[in-house]
Amino acid sequence: MNSPNAEQIPNLDDIETAYQRIRQDIRTTPALSDPDLNKKLGCELWLKFENLQVTGSFKIRGATNAVRLLVERGHEGDIATHSSGNHGAALARAATLAGRKSWVVMPENAVKSKVESVRQQGGEVIFCAATQKAREQGLAELIEKGCIPIPPYDHADIICGQGTVVIELNQQCPDADIFLAPVGGGGLISGISIAAKALLPGVEVIGAEPAGAADTALSISSGKRVVEYDVNTIADGLRALVGEMNFKIIQSHVDQVVTVSEEGIINAMALIWKHFHILAEPSSATVLAAVIEHPQLFADKRVAAIISGGNIDLNHLPFTTSQ
Amino acid sequence: MNSPNAEQIPNLDDIETAYQRIRQDIRTTPALSDPDLNKKLGCELWLKFENLQVTGSFKIRGATNAVRLLVERGHEGDIATHSSGNHGAALARAATLAGRKSWVVMPENAVKSKVESVRQQGGEVIFCAATQKAREQGLAELIEKGCIPIPPYDHADIICGQGTVVIELNQQCPDADIFLAPVGGGGLISGISIAAKALLPGVEVIGAEPAGAADTALSISSGKRVVEYDVNTIADGLRALVGEMNFKIIQSHVDQVVTVSEEGIINAMALIWKHFHILAEPSSATVLAAVIEHPQLFADKRVAAIISGGNIDLNHLPFTTSQ
Repeated sequence: MNSPNAEQIPNLDDIETAYQRIRQDIRTTPALSDPDLNKKLGCELWLKFENLQVTGSFKIRGATNAVRLLVERGHEGDIATHSSGNHGAALARAATLAGRKSWVVMPENAVKSKVESVRQQGGEVIFCAATQKAREQGLAELIEKGCIPIPPYDHADIICGQGTVVIELNQQCPDADIFLAPVGGGGLISGISIAAKALLPGVEVIGAEPAGAADTALSISSGKRVVEYDVNTIADGLRALVGEMNFKIIQSHVDQVVTVSEEGIINAMALIWKHFHILAEPSSATVLAAVIEHPQLFADKRVAAIISGGNIDLNHLPFTTSQ
Repeated sequence: MNSPNAEQIPNLDDIETAYQRIRQDIRTTPALSDPDLNKKLGCELWLKFENLQVTGSFKIRGATNAVRLLVERGHEGDIATHSSGNHGAALARAATLAGRKSWVVMPENAVKSKVESVRQQGGEVIFCAATQKAREQGLAELIEKGCIPIPPYDHADIICGQGTVVIELNQQCPDADIFLAPVGGGGLISGISIAAKALLPGVEVIGAEPAGAADTALSISSGKRVVEYDVNTIADGLRALVGEMNFKIIQSHVDQVVTVSEEGIINAMALIWKHFHILAEPSSATVLAAVIEHPQLFADKRVAAIISGGNIDLNHLPFTTSQ
């Protein structure tokens, strides 16, 4: 099977091929809509619960695609990455299934349950300072030692894998007016935008980014990828800066990236719990926060959104049941 | 449409008719299986996540069926029930949708979030002492005032509604060797056993009951329905005693009811969180506890089990993430 070069922007064919490549290793997660919530929101919101995905997030899609391709292409050796957690756990699992050892550079403030999850999947964790630079340096050191890097988002194989979520969601929620996804490094939104724009002419693709990690929104408005940003958000999965290829794809395929407040994220987590009895991680809740804080963009539309993950410390929830 | 008399034991036709009656008001909840968990368990376990159901439990199936039939039959007046919470919220919702007022007698030790849930669905809560007798007396008083009672489990329309879960699960997990469900008042297991035994000749139906609320297991072994039992279990949804019609159906349709420990329930909750990122309420976790504590019954079998609900106080979880 063909696949794009790691540095070549993929297309829908690549994403459909990736879907065939990974589907035996992933779950078709449910997409649900709640009439009571929709009434409050003034739109028809469908949430695809990728927190129910293997390893608890969509990241297994990209990681599995990348590791399977690496094996197909005959690359040998350990696999390495940096990650706030979800990509790390996903890559560790994909590597273990392929009989490879994996190394994951994680920021020292990573969520504890995410660190455990990487280890449970067979990955070795290496801690670093909580900066983009330290993460990249940690990975560079592993590469020097001979590891094959599979970065968390800035890579065509990862983007293809993440885009596969659209193939399922487009069947579960046909004729969506808008696809909506969280934006961190940009792996998910770039994969989604390629697939959605090719499958559904006229569809809008909107990204949701915490105001405290709004490097992508700033990159778009300034026309240049921001490479330093003082990140401050509860959404630990979205603290990474947007990747190079991801930014190119976002510029050409994504209609807009909106920002959401920290309070909005926490309220959205409580609302998702109330209406679906699902604990979405803060990064995931950004999509509902976006609908609530930017209602004019979504009014009367059918919105297909991704709840990206559910890896959260139950003992440190930012909201209470009675909220 | 025909439907059984409230006191006549229903059959598969009744359950299929009920499914057509309620399907527009319920969600088709997902059924998921996890290879890693299956490896640990030594069987192929499918969990149907009714915690994702409208109002957070399977109870909406029976409540909707009963309220719709009551309206079809021309009964007028307020609706009343007693409930530890899930049936109360479900009935309140079904009543509100039908334009009826509802009253729910709840034990004073009911889970706080369940009390709130009843109120959010438009139900009036009346507290009583935490005994079966006090619950029944509270309901009797409401009936005297002219309310129409819809009991939580001991009623053909409720049993039919709960049995509809098998119609979906039999498609999601075909050719199951065993259907497995929690046992409290017996509404779910009796509906399931009727549907499963009629649809799948040779299938086994097993109930899971906390050792601290094992009135059904005791009723079976003594051949007589136990009407007093000193209940002590974390599984608040299973504290009710088995109903009359439910016990009759269980005697004739259920292969066995196994008991599980409190520790097993809590460990199972942690395992469900770990493998599916789902918070199952303690009552639901009994099914996984049953597989773990009675492995010989399930070895190498395909097991279709119900995670009955997810209404739980997030601020009082009985396990920690690191478990």
